[in-house]
Parts: sequence; structure tokens; C-alpha cells
Amino acid sequence: MKILVSATLLFAALPLPIWTQEPPARRAGAAPAPRIVSPEISSDRHVTFRLAAPQAHEVLVTGEFMKGSKSMEKGENGVWSVTVGPIEPEIYYYNFTIDGVRTIDPNNPEVKTGSTPSTISSTLEVHGDGPAFYDGQAVPHGEIRTHWYQSKSLDSLRRLTVYTPPDYGRDTRTRYPVLYLLHGANADETAWYRLGHVNLILDNLLAAGKIRPFLVVMPFGYGVPPNTPSAGGRNTEMFAKDLIEDVIPYIQSQYRALTDADHRAIIGLSMGGGESLGIGLSHLELFGYVGGFSAAAGRPADFAKAYAAVIANPAASNRKLHLLWLGCGREDSLFPTDKALADFLGEHNVKHTFLESSGAHTWINWRQYLREVAPQLFR
Amino acid sequence: MKILVSATLLFAALPLPIWTQEPPARRAGAAPAPRIVSPEISSDRHVTFRLAAPQAHEVLVTGEFMKGSKSMEKGENGVWSVTVGPIEPEIYYYNFTIDGVRTIDPNNPEVKTGSTPSTISSTLEVHGDGPAFYDGQAVPHGEIRTHWYQSKSLDSLRRLTVYTPPDYGRDTRTRYPVLYLLHGANADETAWYRLGHVNLILDNLLAAGKIRPFLVVMPFGYGVPPNTPSAGGRNTEMFAKDLIEDVIPYIQSQYRALTDADHRAIIGLSMGGGESLGIGLSHLELFGYVGGFSAAAGRPADFAKAYAAVIANPAASNRKLHLLWLGCGREDSLFPTDKALADFLGEHNVKHTFLESSGAHTWINWRQYLREVAPQLFR
Repeated sequence: MKILVSATLLFAALPLPIWTQEPPARRAGAAPAPRIVSPEISSDRHVTFRLAAPQAHEVLVTGEFMKGSKSMEKGENGVWSVTVGPIEPEIYYYNFTIDGVRTIDPNNPEVKTGSTPSTISSTLEVHGDGPAFYDGQAVPHGEIRTHWYQSKSLDSLRRLTVYTPPDYGRDTRTRYPVLYLLHGANADETAWYRLGHVNLILDNLLAAGKIRPFLVVMPFGYGVPPNTPSAGGRNTEMFAKDLIEDVIPYIQSQYRALTDADHRAIIGLSMGGGESLGIGLSHLELFGYVGGFSAAAGRPADFAKAYAAVIANPAASNRKLHLLWLGCGREDSLFPTDKALADFLGEHNVKHTFLESSGAHTWINWRQYLREVAPQLFR
Repeated sequence: MKILVSATLLFAALPLPIWTQEPPARRAGAAPAPRIVSPEISSDRHVTFRLAAPQAHEVLVTGEFMKGSKSMEKGENGVWSVTVGPIEPEIYYYNFTIDGVRTIDPNNPEVKTGSTPSTISSTLEVHGDGPAFYDGQAVPHGEIRTHWYQSKSLDSLRRLTVYTPPDYGRDTRTRYPVLYLLHGANADETAWYRLGHVNLILDNLLAAGKIRPFLVVMPFGYGVPPNTPSAGGRNTEMFAKDLIEDVIPYIQSQYRALTDADHRAIIGLSMGGGESLGIGLSHLELFGYVGGFSAAAGRPADFAKAYAAVIANPAASNRKLHLLWLGCGREDSLFPTDKALADFLGEHNVKHTFLESSGAHTWINWRQYLREVAPQLFR
């Protein structure tokens, strides 16, 4: 069974000699440096990071596979290295800090990017014995479609991405439910497929008969520029305008989408979780399914105002809302917020699910939450 | 008129204060560092690069907007900087070298990636007074579709991307010509739209009535793992197998494609130029249009063997080949190769076009070559 997603990843998994030939890029006039392999993953899932930095005084590794940072040791030829592990099979992000400058691992082609510099990291993918639920497998595959659309609300050309399930292209009659799926701060409209593997997770669930096919629409989730100071409320307001007045009509003009609230969901993570709860719970006429993953749900003191619509008539809300799903990891700094929101909804008799998971504010959790929630949508 | 491609780019172009608030990521326990803006582009197109690196001894900038490297100067608070320019409106790639370690500009969210580490760079986009031919404009937009397909030839799951012109989704009857468009070494199946702006260039040409609508298929162009030593011939051979036995049939099963040679083109750049010439000129029954941009066309001593098919019967080749197009910049190290190939084709009476341009081995030229060639396809 093929478990690797892309040719790039496939090749990255092949054994390579540590020292080969010349490096791909070198400074004019400098002697060819040895080619460095980093990260190198052993069969027992220990991982060695390396960096050629003869002039450096300190090189640190930070990554989602451990707490804090780890110092690399300087070896011969000025090549620093450290081995960590064994590491559980997962996809992790990590950085090097070279004499105080936080950057990527320059020898690893897999770089995570987004809409702000803070999100730039290198990727470490540790494989287990079999395929993970987020790996590409030998099942029918959907597509990711990238659209450029003119947002009248924001007076700009923006991008969005859409997942179409495997049958969508051949079938020209069926209409599909739609999940609007929002990324977090510092990310963009590519995050859910590049980092979240949404298409592969849904392809696998569909092949296993665990979900019904639906479209996933992933807009760019900022209504104001990233890093705008104190933009919280205005960001959601402007994004909501774009979503409701531009994105949804655009999608419904381009795709065979079902257009009632019973077949429309909104879910987001972190900043996007705050957006999906804020927008979704204020528009039950539009969204029958609402979810927040590690949601930036606002201050508990503001809940009564922010979520006034859904608590005003709990019986009516519970009739309209087929699912209100919250999930957060206990090591996530947003855990108290999300727990407080779940308690608040409970006190107001609004039906909901709150998954207290292990883990922190990472894609590890968000991929798992998607796997958990997808089978509960549109049933 | 809106000239910016993505919200990310839009926001990046807005004026930001140089020193604001805390940086997005900081080392545990360290004092908050000032937020650094880099690159900063002035209204007269001078560009200032900055890096906070109090412990560094030397920081260099290298980039496509200048020859060689430029030293940054250490200023207060350990913030290094240098200003260059004025720089012509274009999209350029650049790197920082910090005490001998080549890496990206960690304060710039726009990072170029590919299939090997050598391609990792930061992006500098300098805008002119009006939109460039590769900018997103207020015209109808096509889509980019990403497919995951099982390659029987290579026994692996691979990705490819497809550009569909603006009308494709609404129109369910018309069949379209297909351009197979190949990336270069170190890149991947996303390069032509992420770096080459193929979709925006074709959207603009289409809106101006300069091309007829066609599909563009961009496969992953490696047949063997990137960086495989001495893989040249075998790489092309394995890629050709995947292209002809897997990719073309897959595309023709998924898209309303015209399937004759008169409506099929193959063009590539650098490594992909070598592939398109090698495969295309050996398969005139499949491809009626063949092009190489800065093509790695092989050694002149091997031309007679590599291009035996097309020179065997020049009259027949000229009847089948509606276009054989070569382009290379005079500062490109492949210029002598491509010039020699043009001369060789001339000596053998094979009709062709050779564009000797200014410039080097960069996307600046490849975007321009695409604009030059697209109107000549399928006419």
C-alpha cells in the first residue's frame, strides 16, 4: 500500500548518504561544503538534526515533538548535530535558532509558510509501520481547487480553496453539502490542505464509508491585515461580510452546492474557531452545524453578548443546530476559554459537545478533531 | 483596478510601522525583541533588508536583483540592515547568509519552496505604477486544480496541478487543447502557478483576446528522486513513462481535452526544458507544439542521437510541428547549449524559433517566455 502523499515526500523518505557531492548552493569562491542531511530519521524513529555553521556559538532546536529547546553539539568540520527520540509517528514543525536568530532548517525542503513570518517552520514527518489517517492511500482521491475571486466586501482580489470529493467531477447532477472550514491566525487558505491534509483525511473516511461526501470551502480568513493591532472584533466583522456576501454566493454559483442551513457547516481553528462560533452562532438561519477547534472564543466576560443569539431561545437553537462541537487540548493556552464556553452553553441549556483532549495548540490536534467531527456532519 | 494577487500580498504591500509591539515568536525567557520589517520597499523602489542578529559577525544578502552579495551593516540593538535600489518592478528571490549559513529572511512570510533545499528563498515583489502582465487583475479568473493520482509507471501516489480557463466550469461541452508545462530541477508541480503565475498570465492574455483558452497540466517533473547523482537520462526516461502512460490518460479521463497532436503542446524550463524537447521531439505523433525555456538540452555532442527522430525527415517534422520554440537569456549558463541546439536544428532544416533574450536563469525570463509563446499555441 502506498502511504506517501507526494513524490517529494516519497523521495525524502528514501535513504540518502549523509555526505554526498556538492551542496546545491554555495557562495561564490567558497570551497564546496559537504551536503548535510537534516532531519535524518532512523528506523527506530530517532531523529538527527544537522547544520553546518562553523562560525556559530550556539544552535538550538525547538519543535512540537518536545518541550523547550535542545542544544546542538558542534562536531568536526563545523557541523552541529543533535539526536532526539524516539518520536511518535506524526507531522511536527520545528525551528533552528542560530546565535539567537530563529530560522528554518536550511537543509530540509519541507517548509511551512503562512501569512505572517511567525509561522515559518521546517516540517518533520515521522512515519509509523502503516499509513496514518492523514496519509495519502490507495483510495479514490478528491481534488483541491484554488479560486481567485473579487471580494466586493473587501474591495480586493482574494483566493480560496475548495475540496471536491472523488465523485464530484464525473457526477454532474448531485448537489452536495458544504463545510466552510477556517484556518487560524498567521495561516492562509492553503493551510487546511497543506498542513491539515483535509483532502486525504476525507478521502480516507469516505473510502471507509464513515462520512457522506461533501464540499469543503477554505477561504482566506482575515478580514483585516494579519498582525493588525487590536483588530479582533473588526477582523471577524469584515471577514463575516466577505464570507456571507461574497464567498457563499460565489461558491453557490460555481458548485453544485446544497444551499439550506441543514446542509451548511462552519468550523474553524484558533482565530478561525472564534470566527466560526461568532458567525455561525449568530446565523443559525445559515449554518446548521458549528464547530470550534482550540477556538479563540473571546473573553468569558463577553460571552453573554457575543453569543446572545444562541442563548436567547435555547429550544429554538437546539432545533436548528444539528451539531455544536468544541474541542481543545488540555495543554492549549485557550483551554480555559473553551472550557468556560462549554460551561456557559451548558448553563444556558444549549446542546453541545466539548472534547477535552490531550495535547496543545497544534495541527496534531486539529487533524484529529477533523477526523472526529466529519462523520457527524450532514447525517 | 486591483492589481494584487492574494490577500497576503495585498496586506504585505500596506505600510507597516517598522517597530511595533512584540515579535510573533520569541525564545522562552528572552526579552521581547522589536518587530523587524524586512523587506521594506520605499515609494521610489529602494529596498531595505533588516535582521536582528546581535551575536552575528557578518550578514550578507544575495538576490536576483543584483550581482554577487551585499554586506549588511550592524546598527543599534544588533539590528543589521542594508538598502539597495532603485529596483525595477519584478518578482525576485533572495537569501540571507548569516555567519556563513545560507537561509531565508525570517521576517518575510513569502518563502519560495520546492523539492530540494537549494530552492528555499525569500520573495521580494516590487510593484510598478500599474499592474504587471503576471499580476492578478479585474478580469475573469481560471482555477488551479490539484490532483492526487496513482502512477502505475512509478508505483507511487503523485500530485499534479491543472489550470482551467475561466469558462471551463460553466461550459460542459467544449473540449480544450492541452499544454503540458514542466518545471525545472529543485521545483515541483506547484512552481508554475506559485512562482510562474501561469494562471494570472493566461487570464490576462485571454481577457485581452490574445490567446485561445486551453488547459495547462503541470505534473511533478521528476522520474527519479531529486538530487539523484548522474540521473539525467534515467530521470527523463522514467518521467516520460509517467507522463505518457499515466498523466495524459488520467487527464483525458478527467477533463474535456482534445486528444490529437494538433491540440497538445509540451513546454518546460531548465530540466523540464530538456524533458519537453527530449520527449516532445521524439513523439511528434503526440505533440504538435514543443518548447524549451532555458532548456537543459544535453551536450551538443549528443544532439544527433538525442534528437535523431526530428532530424530524420525534416520535411515531415516541419509538417507535424506547428511550433518548436526555444528561448534563453544571454547571461544563462545554458545559453551556449541552447544556441548550439538552435544552430543544430537550423543545419538540419528543422523549423524553429530561438529567442535570445537578456537575463539569466530566472523566473523573470520564464514568465516572459510564457507570455511570448502562449499566443502562438493552438492557432
